[in-house]
Amino acid sequence: MPRRYTLTLSCPDRVGIVAAVSGLIAAHGGWITEANHHSDPEGGRFFMRQEILADSLPFDATSFRERLAPIAAEFAMDWRLVDSACKERVVILVSQLGHCLYDLLARWQAQEWDIEIPCVISNHDTHRGFVEWHGIPFHHVPVASGDKAAAFARIAELFEDAQGDVMVLARYMQILPDALCQRYPHRIINIHHGFLPSFKGAKPYHQAYERGVKLVGATCHYVTSDLDDGPIIEQDVVRVDHSDDPSDLIRYGRDIEKTVLARGLGYHLDDRVLIHGRRTVVFR
Amino acid sequence: MPRRYTLTLSCPDRVGIVAAVSGLIAAHGGWITEANHHSDPEGGRFFMRQEILADSLPFDATSFRERLAPIAAEFAMDWRLVDSACKERVVILVSQLGHCLYDLLARWQAQEWDIEIPCVISNHDTHRGFVEWHGIPFHHVPVASGDKAAAFARIAELFEDAQGDVMVLARYMQILPDALCQRYPHRIINIHHGFLPSFKGAKPYHQAYERGVKLVGATCHYVTSDLDDGPIIEQDVVRVDHSDDPSDLIRYGRDIEKTVLARGLGYHLDDRVLIHGRRTVVFR
Amino acid sequence: MPRRYTLTLSCPDRVGIVAAVSGLIAAHGGWITEANHHSDPEGGRFFMRQEILADSLPFDATSFRERLAPIAAEFAMDWRLVDSACKERVVILVSQLGHCLYDLLARWQAQEWDIEIPCVISNHDTHRGFVEWHGIPFHHVPVASGDKAAAFARIAELFEDAQGDVMVLARYMQILPDALCQRYPHRIINIHHGFLPSFKGAKPYHQAYERGVKLVGATCHYVTSDLDDGPIIEQDVVRVDHSDDPSDLIRYGRDIEKTVLARGLGYHLDDRVLIHGRRTVVFR
Amino acid sequence: MPRRYTLTLSCPDRVGIVAAVSGLIAAHGGWITEANHHSDPEGGRFFMRQEILADSLPFDATSFRERLAPIAAEFAMDWRLVDSACKERVVILVSQLGHCLYDLLARWQAQEWDIEIPCVISNHDTHRGFVEWHGIPFHHVPVASGDKAAAFARIAELFEDAQGDVMVLARYMQILPDALCQRYPHRIINIHHGFLPSFKGAKPYHQAYERGVKLVGATCHYVTSDLDDGPIIEQDVVRVDHSDDPSDLIRYGRDIEKTVLARGLGYHLDDRVLIHGRRTVVFR
Repeated sequence: MPRRYTLTLSCPDRVGIVAAVSGLIAAHGGWITEANHHSDPEGGRFFMRQEILADSLPFDATSFRERLAPIAAEFAMDWRLVDSACKERVVILVSQLGHCLYDLLARWQAQEWDIEIPCVISNHDTHRGFVEWHGIPFHHVPVASGDKAAAFARIAELFEDAQGDVMVLARYMQILPDALCQRYPHRIINIHHGFLPSFKGAKPYHQAYERGVKLVGATCHYVTSDLDDGPIIEQDVVRVDHSDDPSDLIRYGRDIEKTVLARGLGYHLDDRVLIHGRRTVVFR
Repeated sequence: MPRRYTLTLSCPDRVGIVAAVSGLIAAHGGWITEANHHSDPEGGRFFMRQEILADSLPFDATSFRERLAPIAAEFAMDWRLVDSACKERVVILVSQLGHCLYDLLARWQAQEWDIEIPCVISNHDTHRGFVEWHGIPFHHVPVASGDKAAAFARIAELFEDAQGDVMVLARYMQILPDALCQRYPHRIINIHHGFLPSFKGAKPYHQAYERGVKLVGATCHYVTSDLDDGPIIEQDVVRVDHSDDPSDLIRYGRDIEKTVLARGLGYHLDDRVLIHGRRTVVFR
Repeated sequence: MPRRYTLTLSCPDRVGIVAAVSGLIAAHGGWITEANHHSDPEGGRFFMRQEILADSLPFDATSFRERLAPIAAEFAMDWRLVDSACKERVVILVSQLGHCLYDLLARWQAQEWDIEIPCVISNHDTHRGFVEWHGIPFHHVPVASGDKAAAFARIAELFEDAQGDVMVLARYMQILPDALCQRYPHRIINIHHGFLPSFKGAKPYHQAYERGVKLVGATCHYVTSDLDDGPIIEQDVVRVDHSDDPSDLIRYGRDIEKTVLARGLGYHLDDRVLIHGRRTVVFR
Repeated sequence: MPRRYTLTLSCPDRVGIVAAVSGLIAAHGGWITEANHHSDPEGGRFFMRQEILADSLPFDATSFRERLAPIAAEFAMDWRLVDSACKERVVILVSQLGHCLYDLLARWQAQEWDIEIPCVISNHDTHRGFVEWHGIPFHHVPVASGDKAAAFARIAELFEDAQGDVMVLARYMQILPDALCQRYPHRIINIHHGFLPSFKGAKPYHQAYERGVKLVGATCHYVTSDLDDGPIIEQDVVRVDHSDDPSDLIRYGRDIEKTVLARGLGYHLDDRVLIHGRRTVVFR
């Protein structure tokens, strides 16, 4: 893949936003390879994402940002320009269930994403060997029921030391404290093993079994202080029937969980996800 | 389709149930064309459905029932034998949205199901012409906010007069009173325009939009006194994204609603649905 | 819905296309409510669709076209500007199976699309009453095996008289002659009851059954001289298993056919489909 | 899971099959936990699968088989009784793409299946470290274009030495010679990266892209002498659109491939797949 700049922005909707941005890019010969817009008619907000070939522009990212700044100010944009040459640093948190971890490392191995995984953190030592075999540092941070604060302080420290861009809860079975959620807004991604907003909290598959639903699902979302209530990035479901007991639901669910997490994380890594209150705009 | 007897039963699970039933049928040369079993390991209950060619047996349905009775008593079965020669009588209730009504009448017209539709009942007069063109009686029963009891008494009377077997709420936008729900257990089928148990009650698509889910769905269920909480027969979903506003969700939802209702009703008409507490066993 | 202009175009990809078009629109205060772009990296072709609020521009559609013309010429655009005030005229062709016809008329009745249906044409008289009850003229044009040419000449004449914009083959079971296909490129839409390119030609469900596939599907495509080989607009599938015989596949397939046809036709009516050789660009 | 016997059989359909088998089992107090039947009305063949709790019977598998033999002979059954205490031995073949291998080993690690993996065989040395880290022997068997026969003779030898029950082609990119296919009928399982019968042979995703389909899929099937034409066990699809180039299709396809392979293999391992000519009966 050639080097690209990805520009994402949102601002109050009005005439001339696209003309102003695309005018600037065209004036310098910039080649746009992908563009998406969205106007939210209710909230009156406009969202945009553009990918520009880095080599088509006669200046670098810093200079590009300087030229965009006046337009951004004029339209009151919430904006960001990302250079594909800077790899995203993904820190994975996991507990004992390893299906999402295997899946993420398989994708990393296959270079599906252009990322670094500076470390994996777990409250169990189960997956140390598997992670270290891949040449990735593994940190065992037990979460003692009496002193959770210390554990999460340690996790934040490891994330900072690793210069992490995004923290992925790959079936990490501890609830993050508010402080941590608020410190990294839209930078912590969780996979919930239920089709939210149904079946929040613990044992969603058992809840689904008790209710007798005919489809079970999984939800990839940003973590906020409201448990299982952050903006949803991606969801999917799988069909079940009366012959499936909770252990079957758990088994089918694993396949959905890893796929949904990977899709949601992939959108995030490509800067395809913009936040819109409790919702997301995902430019697929 | 040749004439068939459909035997459905449930009973406490123990050794010898299938042997007893299939032994009786085999002893008289009965030809089983379809058979399904289900053991619920938690509740210790056994469920069975068998289709037998009527002409393969040397006796009629009444006589068949007499021969089954001692076995049913021995195993404490909750059972039922249905003769395909007796057509199910389906009474449809509808309000102003006609997509499910069109869909049901299209299937009836195409003889997808071997049913009678003795009448259609509505709280609006909107669809009278369409229904009557099909040669089906149409009853307009307005539901006045001050005197709902009278309206539902009239509906029950019409259902009785029509010798209805099953009442289908095809986007009928009134809440049925408890008394009616309890009078016809597992004989009233509703299509809810949301993926239950999420988004109960009114305006489920608006609720879904507010929450920012990435899939919306519909649920076909038996009506009980607990609103939107009866045993689920069938569900399905359709993918949506940020560009879809509530009116889009409503539009996509219509396609799911009519398909899910038709599938759920079809299973019911074929005696494929057995009740198991809050859940259903659906022998597809 | 407020009145809108929909601009669709494709042209050789180069720098400045979006800037030129959005610059023109912004210069006159045009409000863009929806925009989609696509660059085909292989073929070097660019595709765009924009919806503009008619009332935001100080001129009418004719004047808008005049102003777009020089830009279109500069970039060698293949383009079209549609005014939502002009309703699309949809002529439906059907044979004996009525499920797609019921579905299309239900949507028309519910005003899902802003269209006119000037007439329905059939090689059988089966659906005359149903169509005429809706106040739509019905033409019975038998296709005699010895004189098909006359029948199709009559169909073309009826389509012209009706000032049809698009011809929809809603399970019309006759093969259109080459001349007719070529006369109306990308204006004839068919629903094929198979998941193309598998199972072309007759009896696709029987072919699928023989092969033992686990999913069957339907395909909505533009009709070209190559039977079942025109550009695909939309497809979908439904799961089947060993217990389903060809008649079950046909039954399940009907639900997919009508949904896929409606989605494909809806995209066409909204000018969301652009042709790219044998493929389509569908801006959902 | 408690120890179980799984009985699978097929035979010409006639009265009394179920009665005979279930009568035998009931007579000895055998507890059936799962039962499935299928009558093929066209071919007149009957298929059955039953799971019986081993401890509910007063004799062992050998003795059970002796008691079943006369019934099997009477009804001309093609049958098999499997004891869950004997683990299936799964030999995996892989080339350079590792996503299916990672997925299979993740399931093995999580004990999703009660299997042994005696070895992994590859025509490349790429995955040696990963496989050996799991404690599984890895054999590199290059397939030289001039001497393929020797390579496949070596593979057969390794499979025999490993006492393999089933050979899984987990994106193994070599065509197996006829002799090998015929030596292990219904014991070699392949994942094809296309929705068969479309897109047989090489580069199915490129074929799909050229044709402009809106869904791409994968197919898990038994390998026979007819390339990509063996009985299909499982299939699934994923939606794509015009913005996806062949490399995107390949990427989405990987997720479908591993899921479809795992489901198909899981059905095989549970003895849920019965062969019916070119088709399969899969008792889910």
